[in-house]
Amino acid sequence: MEKFEIHILGCGCAVPTTRHNPSAQIVNVRDKLSLVDCGEGTQLQMRYHHLRFMNLRNIFISHLHGDHCLGLIGLISSFGLLGRTADLHVYAPADYDDLFHRQLDIFCQGLEYRVVFHPVDTTRHDCIYDDRSVSIHTLPLDHRMPCCGFLFKEKPTLPHIRRDVTDYYGIPVSQLNNIKNGADWTLPDGTVIPNSRLTRPAAVPRSYAYCSDTAYKPDLIPLLEGVTLLYHEATYGDDRQDRAEKYRHSTARQAARLASECHAGQLLIGHYSAHYPDETVLLQQAREVFPNTISANEGMKISL
Amino acid sequence: MEKFEIHILGCGCAVPTTRHNPSAQIVNVRDKLSLVDCGEGTQLQMRYHHLRFMNLRNIFISHLHGDHCLGLIGLISSFGLLGRTADLHVYAPADYDDLFHRQLDIFCQGLEYRVVFHPVDTTRHDCIYDDRSVSIHTLPLDHRMPCCGFLFKEKPTLPHIRRDVTDYYGIPVSQLNNIKNGADWTLPDGTVIPNSRLTRPAAVPRSYAYCSDTAYKPDLIPLLEGVTLLYHEATYGDDRQDRAEKYRHSTARQAARLASECHAGQLLIGHYSAHYPDETVLLQQAREVFPNTISANEGMKISL
Repeated sequence: MEKFEIHILGCGCAVPTTRHNPSAQIVNVRDKLSLVDCGEGTQLQMRYHHLRFMNLRNIFISHLHGDHCLGLIGLISSFGLLGRTADLHVYAPADYDDLFHRQLDIFCQGLEYRVVFHPVDTTRHDCIYDDRSVSIHTLPLDHRMPCCGFLFKEKPTLPHIRRDVTDYYGIPVSQLNNIKNGADWTLPDGTVIPNSRLTRPAAVPRSYAYCSDTAYKPDLIPLLEGVTLLYHEATYGDDRQDRAEKYRHSTARQAARLASECHAGQLLIGHYSAHYPDETVLLQQAREVFPNTISANEGMKISL
Repeated sequence: MEKFEIHILGCGCAVPTTRHNPSAQIVNVRDKLSLVDCGEGTQLQMRYHHLRFMNLRNIFISHLHGDHCLGLIGLISSFGLLGRTADLHVYAPADYDDLFHRQLDIFCQGLEYRVVFHPVDTTRHDCIYDDRSVSIHTLPLDHRMPCCGFLFKEKPTLPHIRRDVTDYYGIPVSQLNNIKNGADWTLPDGTVIPNSRLTRPAAVPRSYAYCSDTAYKPDLIPLLEGVTLLYHEATYGDDRQDRAEKYRHSTARQAARLASECHAGQLLIGHYSAHYPDETVLLQQAREVFPNTISANEGMKISL
């Protein structure tokens, strides 16, 4: 299987604690790294967890609360000091455009690489990035300010050649690429060997959704149908449902409800309120609704 | 002795390492805390080292390189989330005024305390803060951008009453305050007991100078004459003097030379380049010139 990994760099809430860092995750698709959110200290977390700065191509910022973006300027500045030359793409809410460039002007003078800002409309479900391996789509969320999540969808890969079968029919190597791409094979006597006999289906494309910060939002269900791994914030437990409502966050139970409703393969919870001394209670409440739930922790790596 | 302590929160250089945090120090004068520089991650360092957020009154920013100020907005935001109500004063180069307020507008909405920005003229040696215990003065430095250090000067305290002598002369308690403030005492027969017999001199006022980042700058010598503790950056060793020159930094030897020339009590070096796997070589080179040198480290506390 091609690499598709999530590295958790921070899964705490806005109030700083010594247990959790603010939000940041690396999504590694075939060794191209994307950073999703970039709270204060993200560059140091990348160092601690041996994630190569230079493989980072794209940064996605969900919204402009400090715990999701205050590490961005430091990271960009450090890339400059470390001699980066490759373009870096920053996808963030459109409101940030002006301030972002003013911060660059002051704190990131003399960069020898290009920082490309892509303003994101957080109210729409759009494809904002697309390459051979993956497409990335915005997920409108329901928070106290413009905010969106991100859905990483792996591109379908080609089927696998059944070498035993192609050898049996004496199909030359030069034709295997056509067969990978769907061609049938015609024998000298005119018999057609259908592609389905010559190949094994490719693995089902995987997907990862990042949903933080948001109230429970059923609109997401059709967008997330069958997602392989769903990260959903679970700031509070049942005891603080009123706060979740007020601050447009979710309880662990609500996160699990969404995971269940969209038939997610697995649920990963995070963005824990500093109120909870540990995450056990949140994990338990989520598992009552959606058993295949795990809780994020700094340094955790999940292979899809 | 009244409390006068320095806590090192970060003493690394701009390039992030897992060994050192970017620049930040707490200066504690009689339990009023000042923060000097505020690199990324400072708020977390304060938490780790159990420094009470609510005792912090003033923040002094030496210059606008990210490793000296990118933790500021996160700190201010967290104070808001934690319910601060007391004013916070930020002293920083005047150029930062506009950007600072735009950052507050975006990242620190709804604060329930006042953030007062004091624009600093980094080219002048001015008193920028003064209270009963301490005065704080700017120290113009020589860096690649407007930059100043800060000199903390303890106010002289009153002399100590010699209770054995005042009791001997039957001086009433109601008069001791006058004597503390310098009065002589006249006996009924007209004999004058001079104040110097009635008191022991107060401790010599202490001072702390923070000089980062700067090339060797002999103009500082008269301003720092007799300073109790001098923090001076020592980014490079002898092997990189050319870089020190080019980037307007100092070598450890130059820091020590300045300490010697201004008759500092002790030299504290920091702001180590990531080039050096540890600080031993820098410390050795400084000590060859100024033996009473120590090297800063995260978590270090120095009582003056």
